[in-house]
Amino acid sequence: MDQMETILEDGDSASNEWIHFPCFSKAGQMLMEDMAHIVEMELGELLYASRTPSNVTRFISPKGNAEGSLVLRAGRSRSKVEFVMGSWLRYDLPFGTLKVATLFVMASAESDAPHFLFEFIENGSSSLVILLDLLPRKDVVLEPEYLKRFYEKSELESIRQTIERAPQSQTYNCTSLYVRSVVSPTAILTKIHDWLPSGQRGEAALASAVENVVLPTAKKVFGTWLDAFRNGGKEIMDDIDRRTMAKRDAQIKRHGIEVDLSANLPRLFGQRITDRVIAAYRNGQ
Amino acid sequence: MDQMETILEDGDSASNEWIHFPCFSKAGQMLMEDMAHIVEMELGELLYASRTPSNVTRFISPKGNAEGSLVLRAGRSRSKVEFVMGSWLRYDLPFGTLKVATLFVMASAESDAPHFLFEFIENGSSSLVILLDLLPRKDVVLEPEYLKRFYEKSELESIRQTIERAPQSQTYNCTSLYVRSVVSPTAILTKIHDWLPSGQRGEAALASAVENVVLPTAKKVFGTWLDAFRNGGKEIMDDIDRRTMAKRDAQIKRHGIEVDLSANLPRLFGQRITDRVIAAYRNGQ
Repeated sequence: MDQMETILEDGDSASNEWIHFPCFSKAGQMLMEDMAHIVEMELGELLYASRTPSNVTRFISPKGNAEGSLVLRAGRSRSKVEFVMGSWLRYDLPFGTLKVATLFVMASAESDAPHFLFEFIENGSSSLVILLDLLPRKDVVLEPEYLKRFYEKSELESIRQTIERAPQSQTYNCTSLYVRSVVSPTAILTKIHDWLPSGQRGEAALASAVENVVLPTAKKVFGTWLDAFRNGGKEIMDDIDRRTMAKRDAQIKRHGIEVDLSANLPRLFGQRITDRVIAAYRNGQ
Repeated sequence: MDQMETILEDGDSASNEWIHFPCFSKAGQMLMEDMAHIVEMELGELLYASRTPSNVTRFISPKGNAEGSLVLRAGRSRSKVEFVMGSWLRYDLPFGTLKVATLFVMASAESDAPHFLFEFIENGSSSLVILLDLLPRKDVVLEPEYLKRFYEKSELESIRQTIERAPQSQTYNCTSLYVRSVVSPTAILTKIHDWLPSGQRGEAALASAVENVVLPTAKKVFGTWLDAFRNGGKEIMDDIDRRTMAKRDAQIKRHGIEVDLSANLPRLFGQRITDRVIAAYRNGQ
């Protein structure tokens, strides 16, 4: 491990590149790049440079109707970060172009602090969907102390209620029962519409909502996560508890994103590109 | 245990009485009594007669502004039922009378089949709230097989979507983060309003919604639970898994209802009645 660290620090095959979001709306791109920048500023010193192969940091379908990007950066040894992931996918559909951007911080086994997940979906130009959450590492039904420490005592529910009350927003009911189960009870799952009480409609209204509603909310949730990550996590001493959390994390890593990738990528990109992207994701660096 | 069984079967201090719901609206009372009757018809032979003391099966506040009823029936030895509970509370508030009815089937450690929970709340006469669910016994994030077996493969999500699409209904966001965590991803948490597309409003419209929307939904969800209970549960062989499920069940039993009772009852009924009711609930028979 130390040897690998040396190689990485030499910058041999590694890159300090982090994710960009070139194909989103101007407001969407600014949102995601702002958030990716904040993640890098706050966590950069805990991370190795990215070792994600360049044919994964950018891949395009044979037909050219779909493209994507996945960038991973592994957490340094004994840091509280397992890896940080940024990704996006863009693909043409009969009714428009779907664009999905994700920022995911997988926390390490060094503490029990939640993972951070931010997903941003542009589907045509009349609405968008956001998923913003601190994913619990433990079964909060079995351990209400965990629920209290990270969720009941935090501002997350009040942040969630504020965005839910925004006139442009509406609760979004995710179709995947697994995603509904993996998120916390304060998860923000919101659809944002392209209208404002002033009567303004269309892309300008949507851009305004991204800037004035989504970005401040995403910053607040990330700030709450940072505090939980830095000050709220506890080391797990008990062997069975450690194994349970590791197994649960492995399921979150596998189901949360890999299952989603396996379901969608082959159809768009073919099996070869899909295998390459999933292998990089599994590798986590 | 066998000796106790004999005493109970002799009908010595036991009663075959089951819960009634006298103080609800006519439609609410019919709904709850229909459901309680179905529970009794389907599970009666697995249950002992109730040993709940008569000062718990009916209790009234010193001021007379609140009353309630809790009836428990323990499951027979080695049956798959731990206990069945019916309860209701009625209390006057400055803005009207709140009435909460609950039917809860706590499954036993003989299998991992979900618990059944039905809560029905009348708050004034312009809306009501229902919570209908099969409560998972396991952490479905850690064990996606459990999610698949009881939820993804069942009709629960389609039943949930049907009631959510009813013009009178609206997603209800429960304030307790614990309740949001303990329910399944297909839980029905719905607020029903007192209007119909025909223009009909008020109590008659609400009664019609209870009869035509809530009752059929509650029957369907209970039917799905019965099938899961009879055919879907598996015996848990592994020692650690058994202990984890027992600990989780104990948390559900404690937090799901007891914490709720402890928070509300003392203010309404005083500590003596509260202690009696909670002791009977803990006792589970």
